[in-house]
Amino acid sequence: MDDITTSYLDTWNTTDAAQRGELLRQHWSSAARYTDPMAEVVGHEQINALVDGVHQQFPGFVFTPVGQPDAHHNQVRFQWGLGPDGAEPVVIGFDVLTLDADGRIEQVLGFLDKVPA
Amino acid sequence: MDDITTSYLDTWNTTDAAQRGELLRQHWSSAARYTDPMAEVVGHEQINALVDGVHQQFPGFVFTPVGQPDAHHNQVRFQWGLGPDGAEPVVIGFDVLTLDADGRIEQVLGFLDKVPA
Repeated sequence: MDDITTSYLDTWNTTDAAQRGELLRQHWSSAARYTDPMAEVVGHEQINALVDGVHQQFPGFVFTPVGQPDAHHNQVRFQWGLGPDGAEPVVIGFDVLTLDADGRIEQVLGFLDKVPA
Repeated sequence: MDDITTSYLDTWNTTDAAQRGELLRQHWSSAARYTDPMAEVVGHEQINALVDGVHQQFPGFVFTPVGQPDAHHNQVRFQWGLGPDGAEPVVIGFDVLTLDADGRIEQVLGFLDKVPA
């Protein structure tokens, strides 16, 4: 499950859309659903476009793990930070992932713990 | 969404199986899935039996909300406590619910924040 949160954050940190598409095919169910307070998307294409938009909005920012994931059965909860490389995150989020039978991400339920003032 | 967390905790607090079945029919999707670190069940009958087991294990204990729910789209996260009525909870849990199109609970992803030593 540590692996899947790493794959998840790698997907978010990849700035090249084609490379990101490859990570989506490897680690995400084709019918993956992603919902956070600002976005509700389904499938690789929409998720890819969502991540692209975040990189355009926050150029150079990176996603980093915060603390340790807490996993059992096919689900994991964890926090992540988003900010300039090497600096304090300006956004902290909290996600719960569920995995399909092949170990791919099939659902992301996202929440926000810290947002810019 | 405050309503649904109330209905959720009401379901857990109902000690009579028939009354609990009624709450399940009212507020839970018939295909509702529930997964916490110790249980993975599907549907009203299995959920009803799970709650029954918890009341047998912890007679007289009650579930209470901890803090405020955080909801958006069809999902909500919140903490709850379990303990003797009026006393400090001995267990604190954290759940993420998703609702179906009719506003019924269709999925519970449960985690534990505090367990007895």
